Amino acid sequence: MNTSMIRYILCQIMRIEGAFMLLPCIVALCYREEEGIIYLIVALALMSVGMIGCAFKPDNTMIYMKEGCISTALSWILMSLCGCLPFIITGEIPNFVNALFETVSGFTTTGASILDDVEGLSHTALFWRSFTHWLGGMGVLVFLLAVIPMSGGSNINLMRAESPGPSVGKLVPKIGATARILYKIYLAMTVIEVILLLIGGMPLFDSLCLSFGTAGTGGFGIKADSFASYSAYVQWIAAIFMFLFGVNFNAYYFLLLRQFKRAFTLEEVKGYAAMIAMAVAVVFISIADKYESAFQALTHAFFQVSSLTSSTGFASDDFDLWPSVAKYVLLIMMFVGACAGSTGGGVKVSRIIVLMKTIRKELSSYIHPKIVRKVNMDGKPVEHDVIRAINVYLITFFSILMISIFILSFEDYDLETTFTAVLACLNNIGPGLSKVGPTCNYGFLDPLSKFVLMFDMLAGRLELFPMLILFHPSLYKGAMDSVAKRKK
Amino acid sequence: MNTSMIRYILCQIMRIEGAFMLLPCIVALCYREEEGIIYLIVALALMSVGMIGCAFKPDNTMIYMKEGCISTALSWILMSLCGCLPFIITGEIPNFVNALFETVSGFTTTGASILDDVEGLSHTALFWRSFTHWLGGMGVLVFLLAVIPMSGGSNINLMRAESPGPSVGKLVPKIGATARILYKIYLAMTVIEVILLLIGGMPLFDSLCLSFGTAGTGGFGIKADSFASYSAYVQWIAAIFMFLFGVNFNAYYFLLLRQFKRAFTLEEVKGYAAMIAMAVAVVFISIADKYESAFQALTHAFFQVSSLTSSTGFASDDFDLWPSVAKYVLLIMMFVGACAGSTGGGVKVSRIIVLMKTIRKELSSYIHPKIVRKVNMDGKPVEHDVIRAINVYLITFFSILMISIFILSFEDYDLETTFTAVLACLNNIGPGLSKVGPTCNYGFLDPLSKFVLMFDMLAGRLELFPMLILFHPSLYKGAMDSVAKRKK
Repeated sequence: MNTSMIRYILCQIMRIEGAFMLLPCIVALCYREEEGIIYLIVALALMSVGMIGCAFKPDNTMIYMKEGCISTALSWILMSLCGCLPFIITGEIPNFVNALFETVSGFTTTGASILDDVEGLSHTALFWRSFTHWLGGMGVLVFLLAVIPMSGGSNINLMRAESPGPSVGKLVPKIGATARILYKIYLAMTVIEVILLLIGGMPLFDSLCLSFGTAGTGGFGIKADSFASYSAYVQWIAAIFMFLFGVNFNAYYFLLLRQFKRAFTLEEVKGYAAMIAMAVAVVFISIADKYESAFQALTHAFFQVSSLTSSTGFASDDFDLWPSVAKYVLLIMMFVGACAGSTGGGVKVSRIIVLMKTIRKELSSYIHPKIVRKVNMDGKPVEHDVIRAINVYLITFFSILMISIFILSFEDYDLETTFTAVLACLNNIGPGLSKVGPTCNYGFLDPLSKFVLMFDMLAGRLELFPMLILFHPSLYKGAMDSVAKRKK
Repeated sequence: MNTSMIRYILCQIMRIEGAFMLLPCIVALCYREEEGIIYLIVALALMSVGMIGCAFKPDNTMIYMKEGCISTALSWILMSLCGCLPFIITGEIPNFVNALFETVSGFTTTGASILDDVEGLSHTALFWRSFTHWLGGMGVLVFLLAVIPMSGGSNINLMRAESPGPSVGKLVPKIGATARILYKIYLAMTVIEVILLLIGGMPLFDSLCLSFGTAGTGGFGIKADSFASYSAYVQWIAAIFMFLFGVNFNAYYFLLLRQFKRAFTLEEVKGYAAMIAMAVAVVFISIADKYESAFQALTHAFFQVSSLTSSTGFASDDFDLWPSVAKYVLLIMMFVGACAGSTGGGVKVSRIIVLMKTIRKELSSYIHPKIVRKVNMDGKPVEHDVIRAINVYLITFFSILMISIFILSFEDYDLETTFTAVLACLNNIGPGLSKVGPTCNYGFLDPLSKFVLMFDMLAGRLELFPMLILFHPSLYKGAMDSVAKRKK
């Protein structure tokens, strides 16, 4: 295993995280908050350690799938450990487990919080908390690939391990260039949202934080009631952008290239839009009589469907009080999630489409056993390996879901709480139903449950396997063998 | 499509059902219950119609997969429609939907009831109700193949459509002989259970009805509290037999052939036993402090795990009041279910084992990309097609589960009720949790929900595809075309 390359990547990640931690320092300066000093110290410390570690470049820069997965998983764990330091040192979240939970939830764009009183945080902390969403949304390793020229043609394995979706498409032949294009689109869309929110009369600080949360499909709010107290205009803007950040970024790249037809005929994007439209319709009908006007009901229906499908998790109202049908539709959407190649979580629309096509194909083969059919996507046949990988993904997903629920069920809460807590973390959504509903938080859980949910958030964000691979015995076989040898 | 052969099979099914309906007439004679006359009339009517329909043998007896699926699905629907007639005519279950629900639940060995007061039924009705379990457990078409010599080498397609599990093994080269061996084992085990229950001091009528319910892994009780008021001896006998009827019948065939080693090393059977042992341990620990003695807690733990894993659904206590961990373990066991090739329902242990092995293989391929591994089962490599079929099965299972829950959620009950009602019907178990818990029944649901659950029970019993195929548009294309032609 190329451990020196993994070390190099981890140090680079620390450098980048340190650099980004200077941003909340600027916020502290504006609001004259003392906490900023601690952010500055941590930032400088991270940058120094990272710089020293990066001084020695590894001779062999080759990264195989295995190293790609491991360095991605370790990067995310390291990032979270470093990222929670300011919360602990400033004493705003003094408990280590809680601070780590909040940071993992931030970077993985889950948005599940342990805070009782989010409005009690300093502006600096609120900004850093929301900014972790933005950084985690597109991926830190993708950022690394975008800014640092890395030699060795196998960097695709880093990107593959961090990007959501069953197959990673390179937009252009070079990985670095692809990463740069993605980050440019991401930045541009975030800026547009900030401007539109400012037009709606929202203060700059709120606009920035909430745009970070939308762009990364994270969901950390800066108010206790999330989006409930904002105007309908703001709610619509947020809902539209949550929808847009759940779209496969390939579509935006095609738009940039002026290939409009190609952008609008992507099967996944069409499926995603159709699914959301149907869900909004069902939710709207079921909640229509609960609100004063049809417009209000439509706003909440669209906001909530868009928020949970894109795995953002903002709330415009307490949907835990809605009728069962509405809650159940939201639950299905939470499960399905956004498009592959977006910043959203979940099982991903493209996987669901391929699976549905597989069922149809299988059913046809009972009727016409002699006709050989292929599953097509966007006019191209889906490779056998991709279908197999999707199946394995789904089974692994359900296995992790079941085991996590099992461990959480020792706390003896109702099934709805336990089930939706795990689903909301594994799919990086944030709020669930019942005791982890939109008006509640995760603070009441035991540390063990919190660690399970942190694992779920990381596994969900990294598409399961990079996290699971850390538990593979063969990984430690080499190390164990050398320890055994040394003892002899 | 060979419609005349389908017609022939359906008429044979009516004949067999009519013949078996003479059994409750004997019960009526013993207890001098007037209801017997109606059972006799219905039985004679079914036999006459069946006889007339069978008089003309079809020229072409070839059955392909498609005809196999369709005739199986239609047989089960017809059987249920005919089987519920006595309930309606005697007025014991006057409502058509309820009577049909009870009969479908009986034949599919689900054991979900709509009856408020089961003890108010006549002995005749109780006997017929329990006997549907016995008939449905091993399968009516399998019985047909066992007793009636059918020409044409493609009868495997009938058996395949009715037997549970991912791959149907012929025990001996001839299908008819295989079916006869299966029914002999089935009958022998039922008789042994009846004798053991009689030794425990249970009346003959109770022993027969409850043995039918155990053998078919059905779960219709004849008392309001199911098994709660029986002695610990009876509960242990029932629990052991529920476990045994969930074992792959291939194991018993190997025992008959004195191939003991082969019988006890079947991976599925070992996995099933290990799973049950683990589940009993967890449930026992979590409920130990709720009962007076450890023995009592162990009895209930083993009884309930055995009952729900084998998809029988008898209850020795109200497990809906147990702690979350215990309930959750039971829920997982309900999902997994019994062995393939048993009378039990669920996803089946062998499918779960293959899926777990697939995950392990996939994870290894990240670490050692160059090593090609195969998934093995009982020492033989599992064919690619089988793995694919298992994946498709699972996806279809979840799709049906989701859509059914969606339709039921319009009734606005809590998620636990809706979810477990659908799971308990789709996996042919019977009781769920909350409002459909072991002390409740399904009578309160709307007719639409009942029809959805009936579909789920049939789909679950016939392993999904035979029922789904009835909805395939191409099936009606030929008919539609000929109608269109006639109009011209």
